[in-house]
Amino acid sequence: MVTTAAQLDAADPLARFRDRFVGADTDLVYFDGNSLGRPVAAAADRLGEFVRQDWGGRLIRGWDESWMELPTRLGDDLGRIALGAAAGQSAVGDSTTVWLYKLMRAAVDHAVRTDPRRTEIVIDTDNFPTDRYVAEGVAAERGLTLRWIEVDTSAGVTAAQLAEAVGERTALVVLNHVAYRSAWLADLPELTRVAHAAGALVLWDLCHSAGAVPVALDESDVDLAVGCTYKYLNGGPGSPAFGYVNARLQDELTQPIQGWMGHADPFLMGPGYTPAPGMRRFTSGTPPILGMVAMQSMLELVEEAGIDAIRAKSVALTSYAVELADATLPEVTLASPRDPAIRGGHVTLRHDRMREVTARLWERDVIPDYRDPGGLRIGLSPLSTSFDEVERGIAAVAEALR
Amino acid sequence: MVTTAAQLDAADPLARFRDRFVGADTDLVYFDGNSLGRPVAAAADRLGEFVRQDWGGRLIRGWDESWMELPTRLGDDLGRIALGAAAGQSAVGDSTTVWLYKLMRAAVDHAVRTDPRRTEIVIDTDNFPTDRYVAEGVAAERGLTLRWIEVDTSAGVTAAQLAEAVGERTALVVLNHVAYRSAWLADLPELTRVAHAAGALVLWDLCHSAGAVPVALDESDVDLAVGCTYKYLNGGPGSPAFGYVNARLQDELTQPIQGWMGHADPFLMGPGYTPAPGMRRFTSGTPPILGMVAMQSMLELVEEAGIDAIRAKSVALTSYAVELADATLPEVTLASPRDPAIRGGHVTLRHDRMREVTARLWERDVIPDYRDPGGLRIGLSPLSTSFDEVERGIAAVAEALR
Repeated sequence: MVTTAAQLDAADPLARFRDRFVGADTDLVYFDGNSLGRPVAAAADRLGEFVRQDWGGRLIRGWDESWMELPTRLGDDLGRIALGAAAGQSAVGDSTTVWLYKLMRAAVDHAVRTDPRRTEIVIDTDNFPTDRYVAEGVAAERGLTLRWIEVDTSAGVTAAQLAEAVGERTALVVLNHVAYRSAWLADLPELTRVAHAAGALVLWDLCHSAGAVPVALDESDVDLAVGCTYKYLNGGPGSPAFGYVNARLQDELTQPIQGWMGHADPFLMGPGYTPAPGMRRFTSGTPPILGMVAMQSMLELVEEAGIDAIRAKSVALTSYAVELADATLPEVTLASPRDPAIRGGHVTLRHDRMREVTARLWERDVIPDYRDPGGLRIGLSPLSTSFDEVERGIAAVAEALR
Repeated sequence: MVTTAAQLDAADPLARFRDRFVGADTDLVYFDGNSLGRPVAAAADRLGEFVRQDWGGRLIRGWDESWMELPTRLGDDLGRIALGAAAGQSAVGDSTTVWLYKLMRAAVDHAVRTDPRRTEIVIDTDNFPTDRYVAEGVAAERGLTLRWIEVDTSAGVTAAQLAEAVGERTALVVLNHVAYRSAWLADLPELTRVAHAAGALVLWDLCHSAGAVPVALDESDVDLAVGCTYKYLNGGPGSPAFGYVNARLQDELTQPIQGWMGHADPFLMGPGYTPAPGMRRFTSGTPPILGMVAMQSMLELVEEAGIDAIRAKSVALTSYAVELADATLPEVTLASPRDPAIRGGHVTLRHDRMREVTARLWERDVIPDYRDPGGLRIGLSPLSTSFDEVERGIAAVAEALR
């Protein structure tokens, strides 16, 4: 027997958070918080205040007073609240793509310098497109080769597959923590260990996990990580991304985009480039302060709720979606792991007609997204999604499939 | 005899625009609109509305409805209103630093591919630090050399100096349209002609001119340009930058940061990277939509006022500052061109004690900035600055110097 949504919502210790998001009071079913999270209601006012008081009132003085340090300060907050990273290793700015480029270049240049035989980047065929495109570009410009791990699009990279792919030629391994298609939650500690055992560096893309799934970067001694902030971190469309570089590596790595913010003394405006010590050397241009305001509101909520409680609700939400799909959508295949321990914050349901079904659902204010092959992707943002919303959404899928 | 500020304000056809900025009703003297422009008052409400209605209401649908095209649509607006660039050649996103990196790499790789003898980047010693740092990095990674033009810090690069520096070894010339220290307004048409005559590409940095000085990129057949939007374009601290690539070059150039937004079909999520045709191939990651909202408000004001009228007021403002400095600050040297035809939107006054003077002025809510050697930089943002503000500010400098 399927538990009722009302029972689950009544028992949900995080239910009260839903009211703190814009639009949660409407009938819209939002199954895409893993692509663009809802705004935190407080962010709307906070942005107006920022314009009038911080920017408009302090003007250029804001840089000295707080903005200059914001990329690393907010990076530290993010590290503490969501990434399991001690201070001094994370920074906010740029896009995920630019961070991927900078950190891949830093990593492969370091690997090749240390051991010229390390000429391969290991990456999987279902890695997020940007990661693959950036890796392709970096490999081409540095004369390296890509070694592909073929993965099942309903799953992701296993430790056994990685162990087979890495070796003395591996410079860098690039992996997604949660696969964007299947929601496969990679075994980050074990895969990191496998990469390290082969003498390779590893770069984790946390786009689909940060804010929904606890990440323990320091505990696993991860080398590098990047992620966006507009999914479960609710920073708004195109909000700035983040990068993480393990402290033990920072002084050994150099990144290619040498801007004034990464200089040892940005206001020296001297003749040559000297990289800053620590995490700041991985930054480049003037930091996007306005774009960080909404993210700060969300990070406060994540800290208040606690990332472990968020994960518990996330598991409950995706499990409920799977339970409802099993019971009411017999024609559909689950294209995500059934075991919640290896599943991230979304669930993908496969059926030949899902492209057309997605379009029909959108017309009815039920908003999942579609990913080939035949995948209806149901993203469940833990703090803003209710079990009732899941129930109504799955019922709408059933109706659209009829 | 010095004209009074009241007379000048009364005769100013753009005086009415001042009230449309946050904080213009206070006594603060703001001499730093060339570093961080004041917010347009409408932007504060617009951002709140964006969060509640656009982001919060449309959610992921916003990408299909308008955001996906915003980087190039806003680029086109910017081109028409301020850059003298026909549609399809400008895009907004990233930071100036990242644009500099992408376009320098695209340019030098193209030049070397076309003619392997072209192994030099020509740049001046007083070019903005980020431009020099990026050029230094690009030269190092591509095995090129930098050829430096030594310039007077009270002036900038002349056509004669450039003609002497360029030749058959030049791949790319990197120049500032308005020098950040002296406000020297480079002869963009003539310098572009000199670079082209030597067979070189030219990249103009418009950070200190866009929005205050008319730019005619197409008319001079400029190859490449970049600029920020937080100075005279009032986009807010760290608002996204812009890049321009002349249409005749777009399909021949490839940039290094291959992200999903620059792919021919971003949602194909296919196996390999195929650059988009046209300007979009120079974009990389998810565009920073929230960061473009304030800039749109300012562009509307610039269009309403007209860039030529803005330039006329800018000349009047800087000329008035020079006139007052001549009359009341005998101990000070003008470290900017005296001829307004070759001066941008700011004026630099030199004196040994200016560092200390700047600190003292800040305590009194008079906000210029300081640039070595001994330069008090007075930035006069045409739409938000009154002649009265200039008069009060110069009087405060006189007092602080006493």
